[in-house]
Amino acid sequence: MLRDGQPRTRAELAQLTGLARSTVALRVDTLMKLGFIAPYGGAVSTGGRPPSLFALNSGARVVVGADLGATHALVILTDLAGTVLAEERAALNIAAGPEEVLGWLAAAVGRLLDAAGREARELGAIGIGLPGPVEHDTGRPINPPIMPGWDRVDVPGLVQRHFAVPVLVDNDVNIMALGEQATAWAEVPELMFIKVATGIGAGIISNGQLQRGAQGTAGDLGHVRVPRGEDVQCRCGNTGCLEALAGGPALAGVLSQEGRTASTSQDVIDLVRAGDLQAIQVVRQAGRDIGDVLATCVNLINPSVIVIGGSLAQAGEHLLAGIREVVYRRSLPLATEHLRIAPSVAGQRAGVVGAASLAISHVLSPEAIEAAAR
Amino acid sequence: MLRDGQPRTRAELAQLTGLARSTVALRVDTLMKLGFIAPYGGAVSTGGRPPSLFALNSGARVVVGADLGATHALVILTDLAGTVLAEERAALNIAAGPEEVLGWLAAAVGRLLDAAGREARELGAIGIGLPGPVEHDTGRPINPPIMPGWDRVDVPGLVQRHFAVPVLVDNDVNIMALGEQATAWAEVPELMFIKVATGIGAGIISNGQLQRGAQGTAGDLGHVRVPRGEDVQCRCGNTGCLEALAGGPALAGVLSQEGRTASTSQDVIDLVRAGDLQAIQVVRQAGRDIGDVLATCVNLINPSVIVIGGSLAQAGEHLLAGIREVVYRRSLPLATEHLRIAPSVAGQRAGVVGAASLAISHVLSPEAIEAAAR
Repeated sequence: MLRDGQPRTRAELAQLTGLARSTVALRVDTLMKLGFIAPYGGAVSTGGRPPSLFALNSGARVVVGADLGATHALVILTDLAGTVLAEERAALNIAAGPEEVLGWLAAAVGRLLDAAGREARELGAIGIGLPGPVEHDTGRPINPPIMPGWDRVDVPGLVQRHFAVPVLVDNDVNIMALGEQATAWAEVPELMFIKVATGIGAGIISNGQLQRGAQGTAGDLGHVRVPRGEDVQCRCGNTGCLEALAGGPALAGVLSQEGRTASTSQDVIDLVRAGDLQAIQVVRQAGRDIGDVLATCVNLINPSVIVIGGSLAQAGEHLLAGIREVVYRRSLPLATEHLRIAPSVAGQRAGVVGAASLAISHVLSPEAIEAAAR
Repeated sequence: MLRDGQPRTRAELAQLTGLARSTVALRVDTLMKLGFIAPYGGAVSTGGRPPSLFALNSGARVVVGADLGATHALVILTDLAGTVLAEERAALNIAAGPEEVLGWLAAAVGRLLDAAGREARELGAIGIGLPGPVEHDTGRPINPPIMPGWDRVDVPGLVQRHFAVPVLVDNDVNIMALGEQATAWAEVPELMFIKVATGIGAGIISNGQLQRGAQGTAGDLGHVRVPRGEDVQCRCGNTGCLEALAGGPALAGVLSQEGRTASTSQDVIDLVRAGDLQAIQVVRQAGRDIGDVLATCVNLINPSVIVIGGSLAQAGEHLLAGIREVVYRRSLPLATEHLRIAPSVAGQRAGVVGAASLAISHVLSPEAIEAAAR
C-alpha cells in the first residue's frame, strides 16, 4: 500500500486495508526494523510518542531489471520506487547461449552497482525477461524457438553464482505488460498488453495480477485462427494463424510480392513512414485481423485497457485504427462501453521497466518480508 | 488452509503458509476465539500446554446458497464444510420480479433454518446466483435480458431486510464454476466452466480466483464470432455469434426445419437420447463450433481443466466429442499437453453448491475474520 510513495498514518493504513489496528502496528514495526519504511520527514515526534506518518524508504534496497531480446539487451538498476539509478545496453545475441549472455548480465550488474555507488548486499532481487516461453516458478525457458541452448536451463541458478538474491524470470510479453502498468496504468487492475512484432502475444493482468495460466502459455495469441487466413500456411503446421497473417515477416512478404523491398518489421515501418499507400493498407488490415482475435479476448476477459506495443506499433495510427474498427464492431456493448485501446506509453522500455517491477514486487511481497523478519 | 477439514499443528501451518510462527499463533488464537476452528479431538492436552492440533469447526456458522434460474429455484443450507443440512426447490418464475422472488427466498431460508434446527444468528452469509449479468461488488443485476423488473435492483438490500448478513450475488455461470471446483477440482487453480444451454457462457477461475473482468462481463462467449456462421443472424444484431449457431434454440431450429418437433434444448436432448442421427450430428457440430471458440480461450488463458456443463451437456458424449476434436487440433501443443476436457460432475447442483461456496469463502475471508475479531 505504501509502494505508491505516499506517506500514511497507522490509522489510514488500518482503514485502507481493513486490518485491525494491532495487526497494522505489528506490520509497521516489522517494515521499520527491515528499513523498508521510514518515518516521514514532515512528522514531528512529540515527546515519547512513535512517529505517526510512514512512507516507503525507496533507497532501502536496489533491484535489477533485464530485458534480454533476440539481438539486444537492456539492463537497469532501480530503487524500490522504480527510479532508474544506472543503465546499460548492448548488442547481444541471445543465441550465443546462457553462459555467455548471463555472464555478460552478471558483469553488467556489477558495473551498474559501481556506477550508482551501491553494494552487492543492497541488491534485493533481479528480474529478467526472455524472448520465449518460460516456466515462471522455476525460471527455466521451455522449448524456446529462437534461443538455442537455453531449453530448461536453470537461469536463476546461473545468475545466483554471481549474486545470491532471488531471480525472477518471465517471457518478454509478460514483463512488457507489467512495465506498461507501472508506467501508465498503476490504478488499472484489468489490462491486456499486445505485442505486435515478428510474433504476436499478450500479457494479461486480471484482478491486478499477471495471469500466466497452467503451463505459463497464457496470452499466446500468435496461433489463434483468423477466418480470413484459411489458406495461409503457418510455420506451426496449422493454417490461418494470426501470426502468419499479421506478424512483421508476413506483412513484409505481402509487400515484397508487390515489388517493395521488405523482409522485416522495420522495413514495413519504414515504408509506412514514407507514406507508401500499399504498406499503410497492409498494416491496417493486420490491425483488423488482430482486432478479430481481440474481440474474442474482450468478451472473454473484459479488460478495461488494451495497450498495443511491440515494434509494429511504431507504424503509427494505422495499426490501432484497424484494431479499433473490428473490436468495437464485434465485442459486446457492455464490455466495450468503457474500454480504451491505447498505444504503449512505455514503448521500447516496457520490458526492462516490467522486469524491475517484477523484482520490486518480490522484495516487497508479504512472503519475502516474513522471511526477512524471521 | 484449514478449510479442507484436515487437522494441522501450528508448526505445520507456519510451514505451509510461510508465515512466522508468532503470526500463526496470533491467527490461531483469533480463529479459536471466534469459534471457527477448534482443538482436534485426537489431541491430548498434557498439563497446561495448549492443544497442538486444530481443525475447521464446520458447525460454527451456517450459510445459504441459492440458485435462482429462469423458471426454477434451488436453495440449500450448509455448514462451513459445505455439507448440506437442508434444501428446498420450487418452480419459480424469475420474471415475477425481485419482491416476489426474494420474498420467497427469505421465507425459504427461514424454513431451512427451522428444518436444520439452527438459529438466524448462526447464519454467516447468503450466496445467490442469478440468470443474467450482475455487478458483483454491489450485487445489482445490469440490463438482464430475461429478468424484467430486476435492472439495477439492490438484491443484497432486499434480502437484508429479512437477514442482516452479508449477501453475495453473481451470475449463474460464475457460481457454476465455483460449484464445480468445490465438487471435483478443489486443487485446480486454472479452470474454465462452460455452460451450454439456451445461452453459452464461461466461468473462469485463474490463479485460484474467479475472474470477473472490469465490468463483470468476463466469460461472455455467446456472442463471439464463429467462422462457419457468417450468414446466421443473432438476436444481438451481429452475425455469426456462437449462440446463434450452437445454443439450444438454434439446434432445435435446425432440427425442426428437418421435420422434427423441437423448440427447446430439452427437445434436442430427447431426440439425441432417442438415437436420432440428425440430432446427434447437429449436437456434434455445435461441439465443433464451441471448440472453435474454446481453442482461442485455451491459447489465451491456458486452463488445465475445461468443464462442460449446462443442459445441453446432458446430450452425452456427442457435444464433448465435437469440442475435443477442434480444441486438440487448433490449440497450441504446450497448452493442450496436460489439458483435460471433462463433463460436469456437479451437474444441475453446480450452481447452488457454488452459491454456498461463495458465502463460505466470504465468512472465512481474512477481511471478514478481521472485522469479526474487532
